[in-house]
Amino acid sequence: MSQLLRVQCFTVSRDGFGAGEGQSLARPFGHVDPADLVSWAGDTASWVNRTEPGGTRGLDDHLTRDYPRGIGAEIMGRNKFGPQRGPWADHEWQGWWGDTPPFHTPVFVLTHHPRPSFTLADTTFHFLTATPAEALARARQAAGGQDVRLGGGVATIRAFLDADLVDTLHIAIAPIDLGRGERLWRDPRELTDRFHLEAVPSPSGVTHLLFWRR
Amino acid sequence: MSQLLRVQCFTVSRDGFGAGEGQSLARPFGHVDPADLVSWAGDTASWVNRTEPGGTRGLDDHLTRDYPRGIGAEIMGRNKFGPQRGPWADHEWQGWWGDTPPFHTPVFVLTHHPRPSFTLADTTFHFLTATPAEALARARQAAGGQDVRLGGGVATIRAFLDADLVDTLHIAIAPIDLGRGERLWRDPRELTDRFHLEAVPSPSGVTHLLFWRR
Repeated sequence: MSQLLRVQCFTVSRDGFGAGEGQSLARPFGHVDPADLVSWAGDTASWVNRTEPGGTRGLDDHLTRDYPRGIGAEIMGRNKFGPQRGPWADHEWQGWWGDTPPFHTPVFVLTHHPRPSFTLADTTFHFLTATPAEALARARQAAGGQDVRLGGGVATIRAFLDADLVDTLHIAIAPIDLGRGERLWRDPRELTDRFHLEAVPSPSGVTHLLFWRR
Repeated sequence: MSQLLRVQCFTVSRDGFGAGEGQSLARPFGHVDPADLVSWAGDTASWVNRTEPGGTRGLDDHLTRDYPRGIGAEIMGRNKFGPQRGPWADHEWQGWWGDTPPFHTPVFVLTHHPRPSFTLADTTFHFLTATPAEALARARQAAGGQDVRLGGGVATIRAFLDADLVDTLHIAIAPIDLGRGERLWRDPRELTDRFHLEAVPSPSGVTHLLFWRR
């Protein structure tokens, strides 16, 4: 099988927002409490950031298991990496994730502003000024034959969808409305001209949307 | 995490039967058409027996992906391996699966009748006269730190449940009634004293039951 480009475990609100307004160092998701979006994932046994034993092993867990599996590289937008805009003022900021980021692969950060690569534990961040197609080619090369995860945020997913480069998406719908922020879609059926769509309600309250190409 | 004992992608009818009556060489599932039970799995992109490209990538596929992943050995009952009863009349029968069985790990077949091990492609079959606990210890040793899959059939799963050795179960309920055959349960809620249970209906018509220990 060829190397897929996959969105995994990306959560949006019922009204389609993946993050709120007003991102800052203290509020990576802007006005939204991140737990309102992503606690479904954090509660599972397999979530990559889990540090303690335990966790659920139901449907949600079956989906968080696929987050790292078969993935050899990630592509993310600059504002998944950090809240800065414009040229990099300093290089001390190394992402939201501390000394051991949960990616464990090369990560390609899309930005218009050059910056040297660096490594934290087993994750190396590269900074690219590139079109989606160029970034995907680089990430595939780095992925050692495995798939590439498209990490978000919303603008990055939209750009790769617009370029028709995405093979599968797993989007979780959290049971909240945000009203404003970074919007992925008005309605998930916008994508069904190009993708099959299954909607699977979970006992946790989220609904998992699974898209794959027609 | 310790090595789990997992049932994966085992299908039963609505009335709890995993196979029909009258198993024979020509009818591994007895009076039941196997497709009525397992076509949900065969339709997915990730099913281990798939030989052609294509297949669905929705909920069912997320579950078939877990069939091989993280598994280092399988335990099965004798009548998953073949229809024979009593001492092995000959050693020409090497299972239902042809030259390349879909297991790709050591497989431990529980039987009261000794038989030498043999290897087909990357699957080695061992024949054990052992209690469930003894068989699990052997399989764990062979699994190289990975989990062990409990492959069935029904009597084997029941024996390991009775010995309280099973950590997680994924059982698919196919939308048919069989009336007779090999019965796993009268009602899945028989297990909820020991296991959490999530029931997840799939668009394909099966309902996935996910059990994990309380």
